[in-house]
Amino acid sequence: MPGHYLQNAFNLPHPIIQAPMAGGPTTPELVAAVTNAGGLGTLAASFLNPEQMVAAATAIRALTSGPFAINLFILPEPIVDAHVAEQGLADLQATYQALGCPLQLPKKWAERFLPQFEALLEIKPAAASFTFGILTKAQMLALKAADIAIIGTATTVAEARAWAEIGADAVCVQGFEAGGHRGTFINDIDDSLVGLMALVPACVDAVTIPVIAAGGIMDGRGIVAAQALGAAAVQLGTAFLSCPEAALPQPYLTALNAASGDQTRLTRLFSGKHARGIVNGFMQDHRHAEAAVPAYPIQNALTGPLRAAAKAKGDPNYLSLWAGQGVGLSRRLGAAQLVAQLVREAQMVRDKLLG
Amino acid sequence: MPGHYLQNAFNLPHPIIQAPMAGGPTTPELVAAVTNAGGLGTLAASFLNPEQMVAAATAIRALTSGPFAINLFILPEPIVDAHVAEQGLADLQATYQALGCPLQLPKKWAERFLPQFEALLEIKPAAASFTFGILTKAQMLALKAADIAIIGTATTVAEARAWAEIGADAVCVQGFEAGGHRGTFINDIDDSLVGLMALVPACVDAVTIPVIAAGGIMDGRGIVAAQALGAAAVQLGTAFLSCPEAALPQPYLTALNAASGDQTRLTRLFSGKHARGIVNGFMQDHRHAEAAVPAYPIQNALTGPLRAAAKAKGDPNYLSLWAGQGVGLSRRLGAAQLVAQLVREAQMVRDKLLG
Repeated sequence: MPGHYLQNAFNLPHPIIQAPMAGGPTTPELVAAVTNAGGLGTLAASFLNPEQMVAAATAIRALTSGPFAINLFILPEPIVDAHVAEQGLADLQATYQALGCPLQLPKKWAERFLPQFEALLEIKPAAASFTFGILTKAQMLALKAADIAIIGTATTVAEARAWAEIGADAVCVQGFEAGGHRGTFINDIDDSLVGLMALVPACVDAVTIPVIAAGGIMDGRGIVAAQALGAAAVQLGTAFLSCPEAALPQPYLTALNAASGDQTRLTRLFSGKHARGIVNGFMQDHRHAEAAVPAYPIQNALTGPLRAAAKAKGDPNYLSLWAGQGVGLSRRLGAAQLVAQLVREAQMVRDKLLG
Repeated sequence: MPGHYLQNAFNLPHPIIQAPMAGGPTTPELVAAVTNAGGLGTLAASFLNPEQMVAAATAIRALTSGPFAINLFILPEPIVDAHVAEQGLADLQATYQALGCPLQLPKKWAERFLPQFEALLEIKPAAASFTFGILTKAQMLALKAADIAIIGTATTVAEARAWAEIGADAVCVQGFEAGGHRGTFINDIDDSLVGLMALVPACVDAVTIPVIAAGGIMDGRGIVAAQALGAAAVQLGTAFLSCPEAALPQPYLTALNAASGDQTRLTRLFSGKHARGIVNGFMQDHRHAEAAVPAYPIQNALTGPLRAAAKAKGDPNYLSLWAGQGVGLSRRLGAAQLVAQLVREAQMVRDKLLG
């Protein structure tokens, strides 16, 4: 039965993973609720420093004794060209002024991966997932020695193969539909935009490790569809965003509930890396600058104060409203209720397929 | 059971539609073989004049007594600006020379829809599918009076709703994954790029007519996935392209068998409308001109001699190698064997889902 291997590997009653969503939504409450409901919660730790990672893991463990995952971005130490950063800031001057933010370069560009990785080994979650890059053999060995299951993120067959070859326990394949950042790390972004309907079978045929399907899956129909394509499990982000446990800022939640799938776009404007979100004022106003904004993490750090100010003001136009193409099917259920509902729906779809 | 309604409507043993693929592949042999195998063959008639349409339908009927569909593009009479056409031709001058084509404007820009529509009513196929536009109420009534089932093509929920509201019998929803031309007619192209995993459930929830899923479906896994999402039937194009009955030019067939899903891109370069194909020399060399080439049908007519010359020379670099993102799963089977194999695989996938 599809899902069998992964369920055993993580002792999961249900092959449903709550996706890492950096920047706030993966609260200890959300992660623990998904795990307690029989899925696998994931803490998105890429924007946390080691102390914050340990604190979040402690908070999760106070709420559940079950397995959970931690996600990190694998990125090199940023080399920030001062001219690029200053020009990027200058290009945002009007927006800084409109939101009342002091026009200054950030003190920190990004968290450093290596200290985060050390914290991960110390925390020893059941699983760790990685985005934007691939681990070294030494890092793989360290994770295996710590008995941490390794989930790579891939957007192409070549990336799925790379994770399988280095010894990952599973690979999460991210379709074009997915909300948030694209995890592409080998291919050009233009070659990485593959719909899940084509990507899952191609990856299932290319690797022998379990494939986790991510992107556009919102209900039992998507879960069974992914399993039919050969996926061992599914990873849902947008579906969990509207859970009260994700504690979304109200304007984000409002946009999420009002949006349809064709109101999302890929944009580099918020972070310097391609990510899918609901189109808002910032994305429209700066559309001409899509190709020109500084690369991650520079643009991400430069827009940080704007996003924080917008959150404080309740203004959706300067928030990064990450969401996948399934956003039109958002529901406002508690995380435990959502997992239970997904499981029920999937069973109904299976029954229907049998006629 | 998903597919039930559509199977009854067309008396189809299997809810598998062979997609219209204009420009050659939908030979009477292919259409009839799919229909005789229990699916629904489709004649792509958009580039045929009324006499050619009647001749093709007669040839199909000599090979099958079963139902088949005819597809037409719904487009207004082209208004060709002479300066735009001449500039478009001038921009292709080097390519015309390289392929030994005389540099002259075409005698005809496109077939006219209204005479084609008259021929359709005369031929009376079991079904007619339409792309790039929507019918008038009078045209809908004429088709219904002729007992021709009407299948609209949609790339967004709004387009699916429009076809349902005007009284179509079914709507074929085309995911981002699909090969060939995007059928978008209401939304901007950028808002019409939705993966099937998100598009099918959204459309199924929005309309009460049967939804046919198209894009990236290549085998039994894709068929069951589409049914899980709520589709009543599937439409496959790329999967049928490599059937001998499609009589593809050898370089196209070779490219098809060698390609993977991430080697396809959307391009306007061949026709002036967005279409997905395998990346080749022409697409790479003229990439800078993507936004600038004249709109359909001008660019389509201007590149016609280039594609004909490339076909004669066996050169894949100037052919429009239309293919969907599932192209990596192409198989070289006869059309009847392919339909039988798809049906067997779908049953195996269903059995596996039940555990």
